Amino acid sequence: MFSRVAIIGLGLIGGSVASGLRQRGLAAHVTAWDKQEAALKEGAKRGVIDSASASIADAIADADLVILAVPMLAVQETFVAMRDVLGDDTIVTDVGSVKCAVFEAARQAFGEIPQNLVPGHPIAGSERHGVGAADPDVFAGHKVILTPKLSTNGDATRAVREMWQALDAMVVEMDPEHHDLVLAQTSHLPHLLAYALVDTLSHQGDSLEIFEYAAGGFRDFTRIAASDPVMWRDIFAANSGPVLEILDRFTDDLARLRTLVSEGRTDELTEVFARAKTARDHFSLLMAQRKPKGEH
Amino acid sequence: MFSRVAIIGLGLIGGSVASGLRQRGLAAHVTAWDKQEAALKEGAKRGVIDSASASIADAIADADLVILAVPMLAVQETFVAMRDVLGDDTIVTDVGSVKCAVFEAARQAFGEIPQNLVPGHPIAGSERHGVGAADPDVFAGHKVILTPKLSTNGDATRAVREMWQALDAMVVEMDPEHHDLVLAQTSHLPHLLAYALVDTLSHQGDSLEIFEYAAGGFRDFTRIAASDPVMWRDIFAANSGPVLEILDRFTDDLARLRTLVSEGRTDELTEVFARAKTARDHFSLLMAQRKPKGEH
Repeated sequence: MFSRVAIIGLGLIGGSVASGLRQRGLAAHVTAWDKQEAALKEGAKRGVIDSASASIADAIADADLVILAVPMLAVQETFVAMRDVLGDDTIVTDVGSVKCAVFEAARQAFGEIPQNLVPGHPIAGSERHGVGAADPDVFAGHKVILTPKLSTNGDATRAVREMWQALDAMVVEMDPEHHDLVLAQTSHLPHLLAYALVDTLSHQGDSLEIFEYAAGGFRDFTRIAASDPVMWRDIFAANSGPVLEILDRFTDDLARLRTLVSEGRTDELTEVFARAKTARDHFSLLMAQRKPKGEH
Repeated sequence: MFSRVAIIGLGLIGGSVASGLRQRGLAAHVTAWDKQEAALKEGAKRGVIDSASASIADAIADADLVILAVPMLAVQETFVAMRDVLGDDTIVTDVGSVKCAVFEAARQAFGEIPQNLVPGHPIAGSERHGVGAADPDVFAGHKVILTPKLSTNGDATRAVREMWQALDAMVVEMDPEHHDLVLAQTSHLPHLLAYALVDTLSHQGDSLEIFEYAAGGFRDFTRIAASDPVMWRDIFAANSGPVLEILDRFTDDLARLRTLVSEGRTDELTEVFARAKTARDHFSLLMAQRKPKGEH
């Protein structure tokens, strides 16, 4: 139970955390700041937050928990705005998709990494955005990855873990470097491919027709490409190293597939396809067995 | 209303057509042949077909409609097996994902393109396969593309169109070359990318972990990669020209995106992402407006 929680950045995720905390009675007061006043007004109107703050300093004063839910590239300037106001005992967490960059931004802004900083990443994708789409149950059954360092205050980590568990999420801990590599593989690269494909096809002759005849395959891709462009720009800027590493391996593999297609090496094509299907089926089965009640 | 329909290849699609025709009373008798006897037994047991035939020749004798539902690379040998038995008035259609290859296979097998051959392609993707998954309503609300030539008998085209309409599909006509290019873009390339991605990631250190943390992005990809490997091998063999053409454009676009990421050109990244999102949103809206009742 927190007495005052400050949400910095009131979009879909910030709003959903705020709403979840309020609805479950986990915070006596939830305030928020956003650079867009309209978001704060809508949040207050919808009862997502208790109050809107006029500045980051106002929001975090006397807060026992601060949750950053801003695009990755805005994290550092947010830390700078917090620097002279942040209470010694205030716990700070975030919801960004890249974790090493959060520590680096903190080092730049604070001169050292605050012991009460516990970076976090809820794995809950959604096409929707904005506080209007806030949903107090959006994290239920989903994973949240926390990436504390050895120097992180254990009590702070525990408090952040309990907050997410109270929102019915499943919390795991991981090194920040490992987190960024796994996410580059499972999320960032697929999004880059989806954006590239939709861009390529939009430039073809009759793009309406292309979308019209899109069966399962392409539709799944375009759904991915409907995500927020600014959020994704920041993710690629903040995690370029791991993304480029896995992108290059993918490009090599794709070039090999191209050779198999162009040279009509059908047996080898079948092997690759069957291997991919086996991997998918194998892990689908494992995931189904391990899937807790309520995950979707 | 057909008196005798012969289904060659009793898998998910062949079985679904058979089942749909029977359930709607559109054929007095539906027989089938499949190289796997087990499929015929299961089809007969489930009431998907009226009878199993011992050979292609037996199946198509006296048939007024023959529907090929075999993998693309088996089309030509099927035509060869039909050559000396096919009645002059028997209409022939198929359900393959590549259409130029069907005409080419017919030319090779018959010496010329039969006037009653009306190639078709139902756009109804599914992860499932086998006659056990046959569903008489799987085509309802989905598009079926027919690709007759100028030399094709108009009555045959009409009969095939009416058959699909009776299964509640929406029938459109298109040049075979155009069909193959559009499908290379909307279906074949996305599948190739999905196979390549799953293959790349399966080779990474802890692949179980990679699947475990897969959020929206990667899960959509892996669903695509769960399709039947042999079917896809045949599609890439039969449509390699258009596939390689669009793959090369995609590879160029992806290389440009790589440069933007590696050089930190965030403004240009945002432009690409925003353009992709706009295209997606635009066409989603158009599709929603044009979506007939019952499509999903």
